[in-house]
Amino acid sequence: MPELRKDPVVGRWVIISVERGKRPADFSLGAAAKKGGFCAFCKGNEHTTPQEIIAFRPDGSKPNTTGGTLRVVPNKFPALQIEGHLEKTGEGIYDKMNGVGAHEVIIENPDHNATLSTMPLKSVEDMLWAYHYRISDGEAAGASLEHSHSQLIALPIVPSQVTEEITNAKHYYDNKERCIFCDIIRQELSMRTRVISENKGFIALSPYAPRAPFETWVLPQKHESAFAPDGNFSMLAEILQRTMKQIDKVLDYPPYNIMLHTSAFNDEVNDHYHWHLEIMPKLTKIAGFEWGSGFYINPTPPEEAAKFMREAKI
Amino acid sequence: MPELRKDPVVGRWVIISVERGKRPADFSLGAAAKKGGFCAFCKGNEHTTPQEIIAFRPDGSKPNTTGGTLRVVPNKFPALQIEGHLEKTGEGIYDKMNGVGAHEVIIENPDHNATLSTMPLKSVEDMLWAYHYRISDGEAAGASLEHSHSQLIALPIVPSQVTEEITNAKHYYDNKERCIFCDIIRQELSMRTRVISENKGFIALSPYAPRAPFETWVLPQKHESAFAPDGNFSMLAEILQRTMKQIDKVLDYPPYNIMLHTSAFNDEVNDHYHWHLEIMPKLTKIAGFEWGSGFYINPTPPEEAAKFMREAKI
Repeated sequence: MPELRKDPVVGRWVIISVERGKRPADFSLGAAAKKGGFCAFCKGNEHTTPQEIIAFRPDGSKPNTTGGTLRVVPNKFPALQIEGHLEKTGEGIYDKMNGVGAHEVIIENPDHNATLSTMPLKSVEDMLWAYHYRISDGEAAGASLEHSHSQLIALPIVPSQVTEEITNAKHYYDNKERCIFCDIIRQELSMRTRVISENKGFIALSPYAPRAPFETWVLPQKHESAFAPDGNFSMLAEILQRTMKQIDKVLDYPPYNIMLHTSAFNDEVNDHYHWHLEIMPKLTKIAGFEWGSGFYINPTPPEEAAKFMREAKI
Repeated sequence: MPELRKDPVVGRWVIISVERGKRPADFSLGAAAKKGGFCAFCKGNEHTTPQEIIAFRPDGSKPNTTGGTLRVVPNKFPALQIEGHLEKTGEGIYDKMNGVGAHEVIIENPDHNATLSTMPLKSVEDMLWAYHYRISDGEAAGASLEHSHSQLIALPIVPSQVTEEITNAKHYYDNKERCIFCDIIRQELSMRTRVISENKGFIALSPYAPRAPFETWVLPQKHESAFAPDGNFSMLAEILQRTMKQIDKVLDYPPYNIMLHTSAFNDEVNDHYHWHLEIMPKLTKIAGFEWGSGFYINPTPPEEAAKFMREAKI
């Protein structure tokens, strides 16, 4: 059973994922992922993954067979386990609990080489629907996305970074009676220097204080507290794919993460939080200074990044 | 002039280091550092770095010439500049100030291939003295160390992660009238599962909730609030070099960062904070989940890491 442990000084929880237990040799260069080998996410290999939780199967094919366009399966090496009780316990000055939660993989497209910028727009929209459907079940705190799959992890606690963002937005609202994200959108639309693109429902922009080069946010133009499929997932799919095409063009297909920030689905609609996507191309290694201080040094001003993105010929 | 900008939602300051301004092509693989090329830190190339701030020159050689064992120079591409005023200003809902501060490089040893685990113990001790001397001048918030040099950055603000650690330690003290780090050391010495090594002045251990595999802390055994050279830098050099030898043996010379956490030197000695080093081998990439939530998944339990380190034949 994985364990959640709390650092007694800074209050940071970490998952000690013993099931994935790594020995020193696993970190050597020889242990790096082999390219061109067998891929369990590819068309024809559906039977090799854990049993699918849901799938989009327009042709009515059977579960765990070829034919689906999008599949959601449990992670084969989950960082957290579904079964069990939290059993919160102390150990002297330390606090821990069992690693109970969920860890799923969303395979957006059976084509190994499809990426968010090249797959059919319908697959991007399907991916958004799958996010919404699986978060509704698990209340995920974060989803990370690499190549042609997404990961979704549901935690038994709210990470302090998430609490902080929501608390600060609430504080701003209590003070001004306006949503801070709505204020950001208003100011960005009047300045225009950091706006990358817009459509009827959404805006893509370089944030004012980005942690890393080409960090990009996509926000609904109108206030919406939680990631909701009110008929606008097609517009979101459109601006998301356009943004990924710009990133791929400007930065030559970098690895990246997309994080969904949203209010909890089971809360009432609120006026202070505004859901959005944060896209982080992984271009610079995080150096020691960032690790130690939580303070980022970014060599690319967001105004320049936005300009490169706007001018990309996609 | 570099700029410090504050994210209006989470309150995180970042440095937008325009002097280092990176264009997209600078991030491509071709732009990676060339190996085996010219090295400004090597013996014989002393005249090619910015003018040295201090150096240890036991043989009485002239500044910026060959002969010194340790040199401190300004960073050639500083993230912050020494001259200028902060000029804190607002821009609508955004806050910024000029990037005034210091950014120095400490070259511990003129030998290109010397590392902390292989250089003479005297060089490790000299490095600690140089840290202390330069922090006394600049009040650095963090120092990062890679290969055979250290970087020291002095910031005009205290990063929130640093404030949080100090506040929490103070809160613990107010509650218990004991230093939390002293309590950690006491519990670790009684359990022994996470202790790696000890000498008369210091203890090296795997922390209870490490962010990454083989994260290691070195703490003074007796309570000391600030990094101080009270005759014990030779003991610190000894345990630090031993720890680095263990890490190099177990993990095959990984890249790493060492962060010094200390109370400000100009504050009075206090009872609640306990200075220490945090060593982070860089083995796993930070994935999207960690970026988005500040929540770490660590596949190596610290009890196993400590055992591997203790049993390493160095």
